[in-house]
Amino acid sequence: MAEHRVVSTRQVFRGRLLDVHVDRVLEPSGREVEREIIRHPGAAVILALTAERNVLFVRQYRHAVAETLIEVPAGTLDPGESPEETARRELVEETGFYPRHLEKLADFYPSPGVLEERMHLYFATDLERRSPLPDEDESLEILEIPLDEALALKVGADVRDAKTILALFFLRMRTS
Amino acid sequence: MAEHRVVSTRQVFRGRLLDVHVDRVLEPSGREVEREIIRHPGAAVILALTAERNVLFVRQYRHAVAETLIEVPAGTLDPGESPEETARRELVEETGFYPRHLEKLADFYPSPGVLEERMHLYFATDLERRSPLPDEDESLEILEIPLDEALALKVGADVRDAKTILALFFLRMRTS
Repeated sequence: MAEHRVVSTRQVFRGRLLDVHVDRVLEPSGREVEREIIRHPGAAVILALTAERNVLFVRQYRHAVAETLIEVPAGTLDPGESPEETARRELVEETGFYPRHLEKLADFYPSPGVLEERMHLYFATDLERRSPLPDEDESLEILEIPLDEALALKVGADVRDAKTILALFFLRMRTS
Repeated sequence: MAEHRVVSTRQVFRGRLLDVHVDRVLEPSGREVEREIIRHPGAAVILALTAERNVLFVRQYRHAVAETLIEVPAGTLDPGESPEETARRELVEETGFYPRHLEKLADFYPSPGVLEERMHLYFATDLERRSPLPDEDESLEILEIPLDEALALKVGADVRDAKTILALFFLRMRTS
């Protein structure tokens, strides 16, 4: 496809997390369209398996969907940070486990219609137990779920977070 | 978990697609936190298999991620519309195929940290060929990909959209 060109960009909201822009985009056809997008630096997502073959999850209330969800650990890239560095930092912050081994599984976009965020999914093993460093703005419960039970979690019922469903599909492929 | 209560809500941006709010939320612990969220009515996602055992995809440029992506058809719920009605409407609008049979596969949240959107994934079969009704604001290319080729698409390379990766995992389970 030919190139799309940004004609103008206008920041309409800048919050603590969200950075919303309205862009005018010139399509290859010559048509100009308006696009509302949420800028995002990207995130690392960590599927972590302990030496005891437990999978690490966090449970937290998510106000955007008004539900408490079970998710795999994840976090936003800090400025200048590589996705792999984020994966190591976030796993130890959220769960207290430092991954000595990380393997990239996939990259994906959770919501490419509106959200710039790219997620980098890692498989973390050879974990070293340290102490969690909880974000004071987050209330997280850490779950260590045996591999068999993790694989038996029901998609759409027990697990409703897309990145976590994806991680569980990869886990099934890696451990079957 | 005890209840979270919204103390105040403030709309900070209202666009054509995006509706951004900043809420003050009282946690069960008594702590009050601020949350930036994007409100969304939800979406239907359609994994559609034709009589010739082709899977339907759309290819389009996504400005938010500055890439052309292959995705399964999907669309936002109109006011008063059920997810199943949206699935039928969007599939025929985007691809020209009307699904006489729909089966719910799962519900999931693409980005529950910031985005209210809930996605309702359907498996569509017994398709009736009609005419697409393209949205004048969208430039879509319709792809009919044979089932074997669809299952061989590489996650993270050929397919980087999360809902499409999820749909392909379900397709593998349903057809293997």
